[in-house]
Amino acid sequence: MLKTNIKTVTAFAPATSANLGVGFDIMGLALDAVGDKVTLTRRDDGQIVIDKINSPTGLPLEPNKNTASFALTKMCESLNITCGFSIQIDKGIAMGSGMGGSAASAAAAVVAMNAFLETPVSKEKLVEYALYGEEIASGGKHADNVAPCIFGGITLIRSSQDPVEVINLPHPDLECVIIHPHLQVETKSARGILKPEVSMKLYIEQSAQLAATIASLYRNDIELLRRSMQDLIIEPQRAQLVTGYFDVKKAALNAGAITATLSGSGPSLIAFATNKDEALKVRDAMVNAFSTHNIEADSWISPINPNGAYCL
Amino acid sequence: MLKTNIKTVTAFAPATSANLGVGFDIMGLALDAVGDKVTLTRRDDGQIVIDKINSPTGLPLEPNKNTASFALTKMCESLNITCGFSIQIDKGIAMGSGMGGSAASAAAAVVAMNAFLETPVSKEKLVEYALYGEEIASGGKHADNVAPCIFGGITLIRSSQDPVEVINLPHPDLECVIIHPHLQVETKSARGILKPEVSMKLYIEQSAQLAATIASLYRNDIELLRRSMQDLIIEPQRAQLVTGYFDVKKAALNAGAITATLSGSGPSLIAFATNKDEALKVRDAMVNAFSTHNIEADSWISPINPNGAYCL
Repeated sequence: MLKTNIKTVTAFAPATSANLGVGFDIMGLALDAVGDKVTLTRRDDGQIVIDKINSPTGLPLEPNKNTASFALTKMCESLNITCGFSIQIDKGIAMGSGMGGSAASAAAAVVAMNAFLETPVSKEKLVEYALYGEEIASGGKHADNVAPCIFGGITLIRSSQDPVEVINLPHPDLECVIIHPHLQVETKSARGILKPEVSMKLYIEQSAQLAATIASLYRNDIELLRRSMQDLIIEPQRAQLVTGYFDVKKAALNAGAITATLSGSGPSLIAFATNKDEALKVRDAMVNAFSTHNIEADSWISPINPNGAYCL
Repeated sequence: MLKTNIKTVTAFAPATSANLGVGFDIMGLALDAVGDKVTLTRRDDGQIVIDKINSPTGLPLEPNKNTASFALTKMCESLNITCGFSIQIDKGIAMGSGMGGSAASAAAAVVAMNAFLETPVSKEKLVEYALYGEEIASGGKHADNVAPCIFGGITLIRSSQDPVEVINLPHPDLECVIIHPHLQVETKSARGILKPEVSMKLYIEQSAQLAATIASLYRNDIELLRRSMQDLIIEPQRAQLVTGYFDVKKAALNAGAITATLSGSGPSLIAFATNKDEALKVRDAMVNAFSTHNIEADSWISPINPNGAYCL
């Protein structure tokens, strides 16, 4: 049942960074720097219509191709909400940047919808609905952006379906440095180049780094995080999609970054620093390294956002 | 340099269970129930000699084939200890039981040796030396028995060489149930049947369960442990080596076990229960299930040993 006194809700959903090197498809974190806004306005004709998208790049207005409207449609279907909604989307996250743009729009839509409900659904349920949006965007129900976007902090997705289970991991007080080079890498093609198998040897080594990373978060042990947040499987395969990748990573580490890795499927990189000053140095070093390859890059410095998406 | 006043040292090293379902080759735990003892007596002829092995099964007396003497030899070489030692080994752990028998003898030897040193070496170093023993026993430097044997508790091996890094994980107050069916499974052949590759899909799913298991230990969350300690990769391949495996596992779960999985490379199984009464029920159910396959089985119930190997 919908609350009768609410006509319009706007929700903000933050940018996110998926994978975090060691947690391919299962880990992600929420950022504070940028995000998408979605405004839902109740209709009474049963239609779900995208009124307007404020975005520097073109996005589909057809409700079945847009992640926000598609997630909203699925949520309404599941809950038997038939009134209809008009949608306005304000994109703060550049599409294809590896910062969870498609997830943020879907997450903002379902979080806004939840505010209309007399009995709101759980965050896990919201992840489930938002995943329909991810599915049309990337071809798979990968919750590593949607989960941190809705839960905030660093999240682990133990199960992405039947039912969704998200674990909020503790996180150290770190500054994230996001560098978005002006290169286009589509999630679908970034998936396409991955080998369908992993050698047993690499699987074991990577598992040790993943487990040690989880331990480092619970222990708040930055040095252990530094040693263990290493991607032995995905980075070697995807780095080729980002011109200058290893130079930029090296520049980050030389400037004092705890680690630097692909943000989601790229082309953005995420690096971690222990404080703002260090983050500035890391940011400059990474942007400079891209510029020596004649690639322009945008950058953000952001703490980890502990809250996730919320209604304004 | 050796302490001048010590002539003989006996060390006890506990049985261990490696892998724990989710942590193939990287996790293990120490048990309280049984273990091996190694007594070293200083000589002055530079020889390393196995005086006696008390064991129900035959074990090699040649110093280069026995895990205790080989680990000791490597430790002496590394530290320039030239006096020589006589070794007595009292096996408490049945060979081929999947309870870390070869690791325990090697661990007891190096822990005893450490007591002779004026400046004892670190536990990580002891793991490094004991691994030489594991190498001759199983063909590889797998620290998932040696590390918990020396450190105690539940251990994660982030790195098994250059340098060894072991992380002591917190552990809930659980009872372990070990069932050793009278079947022979050699570690080398148990490795041989494993496929050299893991599908990306299984790798991702298993990673999520591993990460969630680590989180469950830090959170002391038994229900999360129950959901997440699932082996999707190794168990399906190795279960065939243990007649009746899935019947026994099912019996354990039906009797209330948190989980049941192969102990090391088998044929033993390890199950977990929240208290002693439950552990007894689980034990009986598992032994009965083996008996319906006409297989006799020994059993132990043990808390997790928090201390690891020590000198008597």
